[in-house]
Amino acid sequence: MTSDVVALLRAALGDRVDTSPASRNHARADKSGHAADGTPLAVVHAASVHDVQETLRIASATGTPVVTRGAATGLAGGANTGAGEIALSLRAMDRILEVRPDDLLAVVEPGILNADLDRALTAQGLWWPPDPASREISTVGGNIATGAGGLLCAKYGVVRDCVLALDVVLADGRLLQLGHRSVKGVTGLDLTALMIGSEGTLGVIVGATLKLRRRIAGETRTLTATFPGVRDAAVASAAVTASDVQPAIMELMDAASLAAVHAHLALPLPARGQAQLTIQTDGPSAAADADAIAAVLAAAGGTVRVAADGTEAEQLWRVRRSMHPAMETLGTTLIEDVSVPRSALPAMFDEITRVEEAYGLTIPTVCHAGDGNLHPNFVFAGSVVPDAVWAAADEIFRAALRLGGTLTGEHGIGVLKSRWLRDELGDDQWELQRQIARVFDPAGILNPGKVFAT
Amino acid sequence: MTSDVVALLRAALGDRVDTSPASRNHARADKSGHAADGTPLAVVHAASVHDVQETLRIASATGTPVVTRGAATGLAGGANTGAGEIALSLRAMDRILEVRPDDLLAVVEPGILNADLDRALTAQGLWWPPDPASREISTVGGNIATGAGGLLCAKYGVVRDCVLALDVVLADGRLLQLGHRSVKGVTGLDLTALMIGSEGTLGVIVGATLKLRRRIAGETRTLTATFPGVRDAAVASAAVTASDVQPAIMELMDAASLAAVHAHLALPLPARGQAQLTIQTDGPSAAADADAIAAVLAAAGGTVRVAADGTEAEQLWRVRRSMHPAMETLGTTLIEDVSVPRSALPAMFDEITRVEEAYGLTIPTVCHAGDGNLHPNFVFAGSVVPDAVWAAADEIFRAALRLGGTLTGEHGIGVLKSRWLRDELGDDQWELQRQIARVFDPAGILNPGKVFAT
Ligand SMILES: Cc1cc2nc3c(=O)[nH]c(=O)nc-3n(C[C@H](O)[C@H](O)[C@H](O)COP(=O)(O)OP(=O)(O)OC[C@H]3O[C@@H](n4cnc5c(N)ncnc54)[C@H](O)[C@@H]3O)c2cc1C
Ligand SMILES: Cc1cc2nc3c(=O)[nH]c(=O)nc-3n(C[C@H](O)[C@H](O)[C@H](O)COP(=O)(O)OP(=O)(O)OC[C@H]3O[C@@H](n4cnc5c(N)ncnc54)[C@H](O)[C@@H]3O)c2cc1C
Repeated sequence: MTSDVVALLRAALGDRVDTSPASRNHARADKSGHAADGTPLAVVHAASVHDVQETLRIASATGTPVVTRGAATGLAGGANTGAGEIALSLRAMDRILEVRPDDLLAVVEPGILNADLDRALTAQGLWWPPDPASREISTVGGNIATGAGGLLCAKYGVVRDCVLALDVVLADGRLLQLGHRSVKGVTGLDLTALMIGSEGTLGVIVGATLKLRRRIAGETRTLTATFPGVRDAAVASAAVTASDVQPAIMELMDAASLAAVHAHLALPLPARGQAQLTIQTDGPSAAADADAIAAVLAAAGGTVRVAADGTEAEQLWRVRRSMHPAMETLGTTLIEDVSVPRSALPAMFDEITRVEEAYGLTIPTVCHAGDGNLHPNFVFAGSVVPDAVWAAADEIFRAALRLGGTLTGEHGIGVLKSRWLRDELGDDQWELQRQIARVFDPAGILNPGKVFAT
Repeated sequence: MTSDVVALLRAALGDRVDTSPASRNHARADKSGHAADGTPLAVVHAASVHDVQETLRIASATGTPVVTRGAATGLAGGANTGAGEIALSLRAMDRILEVRPDDLLAVVEPGILNADLDRALTAQGLWWPPDPASREISTVGGNIATGAGGLLCAKYGVVRDCVLALDVVLADGRLLQLGHRSVKGVTGLDLTALMIGSEGTLGVIVGATLKLRRRIAGETRTLTATFPGVRDAAVASAAVTASDVQPAIMELMDAASLAAVHAHLALPLPARGQAQLTIQTDGPSAAADADAIAAVLAAAGGTVRVAADGTEAEQLWRVRRSMHPAMETLGTTLIEDVSVPRSALPAMFDEITRVEEAYGLTIPTVCHAGDGNLHPNFVFAGSVVPDAVWAAADEIFRAALRLGGTLTGEHGIGVLKSRWLRDELGDDQWELQRQIARVFDPAGILNPGKVFAT
């Protein structure tokens, strides 16, 4: 049966069906630090919509599960593919089909890397705003399937705000065209929006019409402020949100993150307990906005530094950008992703401190403070998340829910968080969502065991 | 059976169940110019979530259709309630439950009028951006259920961009809480987005957490440009979109609209064929933006006038705002609502001219040129849309689809456009959408005969 499926795929798709042990092993994992049990049947490197349709027709006919993957940079295990499954890679479908500066839209294939698209658009003064930190290595299709966020999203929106239309192949191989090229439209149910963040459970995104912006003119400004503790930094960030000025980026690093990054970069260590905000302003009022924010931060007790020039700004941002590499030097990392209303950031940091004390753990946390999305990092030895880490993460999830927030601000549910999904949605909504997924995929062959698993 | 339902409702809800002939007759129609056949069983004036749940429990138990209504200003017949149906009015649930300037959010009941909310928010320097021309008379719940647009939406977004969370009562009376108070979140499927524009077919919106902005500081600027013909005006508006400047509002009136409004307001008649753009800029660069746009319009052959002051600006806007009253003096109006990519506006006006000639009709058309949404108006005598008008409208719908657009930019499908829904969605997507609606409402008691009717 297994060999039948591969034979059918090969008959239809020839050498785009890859059964090399290396490729199949590679397809077991994304960047979550977790891998599927077993090894997939094959990796299909789709080169066209037709290839995707063929793969799904064969999968449907044979009842074989299909896991769609972009660049597999996901942090929730969503693209992990295991025994008996087909890994359907869209990475090779990476063309830009159309760019319309007059309509501020682009039509792309799903496999293009976010940053490659960005570079192509820059030439025309255009920009697709979603800018995950992984933009050099993740695909636009993956960004849409996860509903990715980015540093600039508090000001310029997340993926959900930047997609007009999607071409989607259903589990049975049929192609649907959702949405339209006009910026407005309310015909029927908004299935384009429903696909965003659906993590490969509803269908395979094979084309996307993206809503662009013009690039922001002028120079950006960067400033940092240090605070004696993370709570003070969180209170200050909430004060910026509550002020009249909209930062383009506002990032918070707690003491453990800041210390780890300084050690990693061989910079002088910060004072014990010191936390930091790093903020960027842009647009015509960048300089005035930076000054106004500096005043808010100083009034909140921060020691403020406005970067004198681009070089200094780059140094300041290097600290924030080195968080992920710094954590990787310490051990295996489980990056959590809760999101809360911005005014609740101080309370959320209190909860993290409480959990750290209760479990005897250090939980270095960085935070997109401009939008209330926190990434508590759990660092441990080996490849299996220790039970104590999950127990601590569980308390953090519940705290975020109590504060009006959510389990995941941008990374998704995947395999890692499916056991908490019911806690957030409630049984009724969980069941309703699962039934909706079944309308798209009655046999449940798309990403089984992900999202709605338990 | 019918009297049983009313008796059950009355036992549960007392005098919030209104069976007066006047109320029941009133509930037959919205502002589309169309009324349901027959008269509903009763109008329930819900005062609480509990009232809505009770109504739906009784409706489910007895298999009675329920039509939810806000202020019944809809233009697609969505709130029209007919024989054997319950009209469930949410207009009395009009409280603002919470306003959080620090989190830029508000929690409201669905029945509050858009402009009442706006006035309450102004005091705190806040703003819910969606600004349909009907904001003084339509409800926030209705705005969400229709996915309403507004004049400012090209710059500040439509309803879809401005909702964080919804409380929804399902057909069987269960209450679901969709979304969260954080600005980011990708937990599970985005049912909040799916509810927006669902026109009462999926559930009853009984509470909404809205994403606010701060009010835009500074003075606005207004300018108009007249052109020898509508095509020139459309080309000029596309040139503004393709330029570097983002107008806050950009409205286009064709010759027939402009002439009708001038006649209605007893202003000197414009030159034959003359069309007009009216544009507003706002924010810190309002004056510079107005000048830049004036230059684009002049280069496109327009005769440009920048309003010297607020009084003159008000006069210019009065012309655009008088379109609806001017049409009403001429006869019964069917207001169409197609939307196209902005670069396709000249082509869409060509199509309208072609249809006018083919059918010997005048189709006065106004257009939210900033976002590509056109309102062709069909004026006729009596209360039944003549076949020739539907045939002409049909050609206009198909032209919009060919140009990459959609049947309805903001008014919805309701009863009036359900027979064209399949043409836009295709049979596969239509069937999929209908099945999704059935997951929410298995017995099909919510707004039957609307949207997915045929
Ligand atoms: C260093 C680093 C930094 C990161 N920073 C951010 C950040 O700032 N913000 C953020 O949001 N995320 C971030 N991420 C997470 C990750 O990059 C994003 O989730 C990204 O959107 C995944 O894209 P991908 O192409 O790698 O998708 P994959 O990992 O391949 O897939 C992710 C999920 O989407 C599904 N999928 C992928 N493509 C399709 C498709 N075409 N159709 C249907 N389903 C599909 C998969 O089945 C899977 O469930 C980061 C990751 C790393 C390693
Ligand atoms: C003069 C005039 C100008 C207009 N201008 C605009 C404009 O600029 N932009 C625009 O988009 N529209 C405009 N409209 C149309 C109309 O005002 C909008 O569609 C508005 O959003 C409807 O709100 P309502 O409260 O009147 O809803 P209703 O007409 O009562 O209902 C509309 C639909 O929503 C459903 N519904 C209502 N409330 C709920 C709820 N709480 N839960 C679930 N379903 C519900 C109903 O069943 C129905 O299908 C205009 C109308 C008029 C008369």
